[in-house]
Amino acid sequence: MMEESTLDKLIRMNLLVDFYGQLLTERQRQVLSYYYEDNLSLGEIANELKVSRQAVFDLLKRVEKLLEGYEGKLGLVNRWQTERAKLLQTVGEMKEALAKRDWNNIENAVQSFAKMVEEGRV
Amino acid sequence: MMEESTLDKLIRMNLLVDFYGQLLTERQRQVLSYYYEDNLSLGEIANELKVSRQAVFDLLKRVEKLLEGYEGKLGLVNRWQTERAKLLQTVGEMKEALAKRDWNNIENAVQSFAKMVEEGRV
Repeated sequence: MMEESTLDKLIRMNLLVDFYGQLLTERQRQVLSYYYEDNLSLGEIANELKVSRQAVFDLLKRVEKLLEGYEGKLGLVNRWQTERAKLLQTVGEMKEALAKRDWNNIENAVQSFAKMVEEGRV
Repeated sequence: MMEESTLDKLIRMNLLVDFYGQLLTERQRQVLSYYYEDNLSLGEIANELKVSRQAVFDLLKRVEKLLEGYEGKLGLVNRWQTERAKLLQTVGEMKEALAKRDWNNIENAVQSFAKMVEEGRV
């Protein structure tokens, strides 16, 4: 199950569970939590649940596919990430204007932030 | 089907469809769209779909329940509304500081906004 970038995968799964976890069964969430939060190995989870290592592997793969399926349909993680990027950029612009003590800059940053919020783009 | 506050209901259904609509079937989305977007009556939708008025009524009720069920589990509309309220409040504070041309106020507003974003509260 080790991916090229384990950290990216971990972050991805955390986000997917955060948004869609409640659509999973208790058992599915439990296995995800063992693997991605408690960092147990497949063998350790298998021991814990009294099932085969292969069963744990299959369940993990199936649940990841389920979560990615929800994201494919609803795209709420993607929407959240896009909005978050905009907010972080806005914060950056405002902090820069503050550092420069530039009133015009801060005024522009606030206006464009206000427009973004009012138009529902974040 | 007329509710005490039709507008509130309309806004609610729009939000629910916006977040969870892709979990519905094509036909379920179609009926919602006839009713809530095109503003067709139950009778008109029944004619359109060659089913009884009662069948349309039942389908609408079932779909509303489905959507509220997803929201009950995932709470993403609620999360979005809470975050949106915070953003609108932040915009209000910043605009007020701009109007007063008060540098300390704007500095505080930006810092608390930055903290909010960085801590993932919006």
